[in-house]
Amino acid sequence: MRLMENAAGRFVPDEINGEGAIPYQGINGYKPEGRKHNPKIKSCSDYPTDGNKLVKNLKTALLKAGLRDGITISTHHHLRNGDLLTNQVFDIIHSLGIKNVRWFPSASFPCHSHLLKYLEDGTINHIEGSMNGPLGEFTSRGKMKGMGVLRSHGGRYQAIQDGEVKIDIAVIAAPTADFFGNATGDRGKSACGLLGFALADSIYAENVIVATDNLVPFPCLPWQIQGNNVDYVVEVDSLGDPSKIVSGTTEVTKSPDRLLIAEYVAEFLDSAGIVKNGFSFQAGAGGTNLAFALFLKEKMKQKKIKARFIRGGSTKYLVEMLEEGLTDYILDGQTFDLEGVRSMRENPNHVNTSPFTSYNYHGKGNFASMLDAVVLGATEVDVNFNANVVSHSDGLLLHGIGGWQNCLFSKCTILAIPSFRDRIPVIVDEVTTLVGPAELIDVIVTERGIAINPKRKDLIKATKKSGLPIKSIGEIKEEVDQLCGKPEKPKFDKSKVVAVVKWVDGTILDSIFAIK
Amino acid sequence: MRLMENAAGRFVPDEINGEGAIPYQGINGYKPEGRKHNPKIKSCSDYPTDGNKLVKNLKTALLKAGLRDGITISTHHHLRNGDLLTNQVFDIIHSLGIKNVRWFPSASFPCHSHLLKYLEDGTINHIEGSMNGPLGEFTSRGKMKGMGVLRSHGGRYQAIQDGEVKIDIAVIAAPTADFFGNATGDRGKSACGLLGFALADSIYAENVIVATDNLVPFPCLPWQIQGNNVDYVVEVDSLGDPSKIVSGTTEVTKSPDRLLIAEYVAEFLDSAGIVKNGFSFQAGAGGTNLAFALFLKEKMKQKKIKARFIRGGSTKYLVEMLEEGLTDYILDGQTFDLEGVRSMRENPNHVNTSPFTSYNYHGKGNFASMLDAVVLGATEVDVNFNANVVSHSDGLLLHGIGGWQNCLFSKCTILAIPSFRDRIPVIVDEVTTLVGPAELIDVIVTERGIAINPKRKDLIKATKKSGLPIKSIGEIKEEVDQLCGKPEKPKFDKSKVVAVVKWVDGTILDSIFAIK
Repeated sequence: MRLMENAAGRFVPDEINGEGAIPYQGINGYKPEGRKHNPKIKSCSDYPTDGNKLVKNLKTALLKAGLRDGITISTHHHLRNGDLLTNQVFDIIHSLGIKNVRWFPSASFPCHSHLLKYLEDGTINHIEGSMNGPLGEFTSRGKMKGMGVLRSHGGRYQAIQDGEVKIDIAVIAAPTADFFGNATGDRGKSACGLLGFALADSIYAENVIVATDNLVPFPCLPWQIQGNNVDYVVEVDSLGDPSKIVSGTTEVTKSPDRLLIAEYVAEFLDSAGIVKNGFSFQAGAGGTNLAFALFLKEKMKQKKIKARFIRGGSTKYLVEMLEEGLTDYILDGQTFDLEGVRSMRENPNHVNTSPFTSYNYHGKGNFASMLDAVVLGATEVDVNFNANVVSHSDGLLLHGIGGWQNCLFSKCTILAIPSFRDRIPVIVDEVTTLVGPAELIDVIVTERGIAINPKRKDLIKATKKSGLPIKSIGEIKEEVDQLCGKPEKPKFDKSKVVAVVKWVDGTILDSIFAIK
Repeated sequence: MRLMENAAGRFVPDEINGEGAIPYQGINGYKPEGRKHNPKIKSCSDYPTDGNKLVKNLKTALLKAGLRDGITISTHHHLRNGDLLTNQVFDIIHSLGIKNVRWFPSASFPCHSHLLKYLEDGTINHIEGSMNGPLGEFTSRGKMKGMGVLRSHGGRYQAIQDGEVKIDIAVIAAPTADFFGNATGDRGKSACGLLGFALADSIYAENVIVATDNLVPFPCLPWQIQGNNVDYVVEVDSLGDPSKIVSGTTEVTKSPDRLLIAEYVAEFLDSAGIVKNGFSFQAGAGGTNLAFALFLKEKMKQKKIKARFIRGGSTKYLVEMLEEGLTDYILDGQTFDLEGVRSMRENPNHVNTSPFTSYNYHGKGNFASMLDAVVLGATEVDVNFNANVVSHSDGLLLHGIGGWQNCLFSKCTILAIPSFRDRIPVIVDEVTTLVGPAELIDVIVTERGIAINPKRKDLIKATKKSGLPIKSIGEIKEEVDQLCGKPEKPKFDKSKVVAVVKWVDGTILDSIFAIK
């Protein structure tokens, strides 16, 4: 392995875990030339004619699916921090003495720190997916055997579709399912809303296991996951802890600074002429984003404006907007609270989407670039508008990318961020890890002012007379630096790449190095 | 090309239009070994970021999609005999002087006799799909340039999925769509219910055109066809003649013989113990089948029996059963009348299905084999229970296979047929064309009696004391032959195969020879 400089000026490895890698070539620089992944053709003659694919337990299913050393096992993260199933899967794998598994989750959560021991003993070789919290720190310390790969939600779909990651066994936790494998997340004691993050796995994996704690008679409807893609069905006592799968309620920030940021974002969008009948937006479920949605809602009510669609991560606040007629649709990628789950189950205008429809960059278009505005967070932004969302300025890998990179393609991408956290400035000279190229980041909103990317002359012009505190990003940085001072930089072992960050097209955007 | 004898004792060609062909090897004899078809990987960078894929007209779309000599163009048949779009497509192709196109419809209708002139002048080389009425006769007379290929609905999905037929351009008539290509059939002036027959085309074709006469703002919901699979969208004045797309009403037979057959079928299923809580059935939209559904309905009401699901082709009679609580679900493959369309649009328990879920034999199971009973028609049945549904005893190819072959996998397959038509016996010594192997056909119900396949000892035992006129198939045949005499047999040119009938797994079940 050697490092090479990519189009963003970052040094990235020429191979990942023994396979060749393509360096980032600019936002649209790389054109794929191959064909999609093509799983083996199956025959109904190898499946039960009565449709009953139940096997007695998870271990049996894994063995029937060909569990062996070195294979790739995928899971989804719709059960969030309440997921018990993934841990059970790896307990079984460990008990059978299987080694060197590639774990390919759509995201990981603190509950998966149970798997640290399997990363240590070689049961798991490496993770391709978000390495949050303890798993991220483990990786940053150089302890993971293989090299980690971070992808966006859309990038994960792309990697599966393009055959970049071939899944041997997909294990799909299904809050409700039938014996044929039709499955839904919108009901059952472990209801999580939808199962879109498992869609690619169900279509492209060679072996698909559906595990459920709520088996219903065929047909299970809606069939968010289609039984025609499923090999084995397993009934389990419990998929997880419902209180950690969805929140009872999601909470709006109470911090005066964050509320100010949220208000600035809503004001900015309104001043820029983006908030108008038929518009669309997306905002996450963080406290600032929820506050933004509430400010925006008030504006829309005052001005009698109706959105055509809102993209979720849904929460009760978005559900209220749908039910009060402030939007025609919620196009939802995941539900964050119980109201989101209820609405998705009951309201046909609260629509189940997937990374295929929303984010996959190797499709015939996707929804992300059609959004009028998106409001995101970031861990760092540099003075050129490049941004980071996976590591902090202390150098530790702590977050996954989620849909963040995909959302950057929106018509107006706003990063709503505090200017510093724990006395560490968020605006920096150079980001620790490059995750979002500057060309796609339009506006930075902090409690100290709003910076517009100089490339967006249209936005600068439109908001000139808004009365908002619009400044250059350098000005904001200077203010913050005076307040915080310059924190010490982390020290990296630049010879040891512990993980890479992929761009939405599968090329390598940046490297994450071991912390010294 | 030479003929070889297959496992059913029929002589079939070893190649079709220059490509190798696999002879039928028994119901489950053939095991596919390859991989699914893999279209080229696309990139969002080649599609409009605002999602707007509208081009000015159908001709532009076809040219952009790479229209040229010898390509394969697919269409679907949800507009049935009201389809104007397919004819327009071939008018354009003809006007551009393009030759040798393979037309790959999911079915054809009499309205497509417009295309006879293009079959004659070489614009169309041959049809793979049903060759009904005038197109069938044209084929039977040996006039089609290439060899026709008849597939079931499931076989068509299988052929596309397996790469047996690579579609260059799919043209999808969409009663409602948005500029991104999301499309639905359940609303709009040309509403046809659903678009399931175009699903495989949308996923596997290299170029996908959606044509609509009802363009709505993004997002068009439900998205039965997903815009992420679509290249171009075209707005047209009219897709077709609404009165021929769906019937105002579907009509129950008034013939006393057919009513008797329908009553026998309902009685038989009841006597055999199949009509019980949680059961499932499928019946087509022919007059006899509708009458059967009404007899069954009365039985279910009397006995307070509720089905778990009914498979459509839906009609107002099935919709009434759903609305009266006699079934939990209709799992629908196509809607035959306006009530079917309304119900699918309004009732979440009236569910849109596709040949992928219902019929594809090269999947991980499908719905067809899970059905407790299916009631079908046939043009001929032989004394061994082999059946024909594509040609008549006069030798002319007159019907497509539809879902007929796929439905044979039901737990109890009943052919409900008159014992003769126009003084020609329907029970014969040998079928003109073998479309359904005897092993899968359980019961023949005629107005003269019911014959049970000797292999189904369970059904024979269960209905022994039913009081129904259960006879051997030979006895029924004898009665009919005495009445009708032996009709003259058609004369074929056995050196000229005009079309083949495929089995659900892509192997060749039988040949159709030119009429002398």
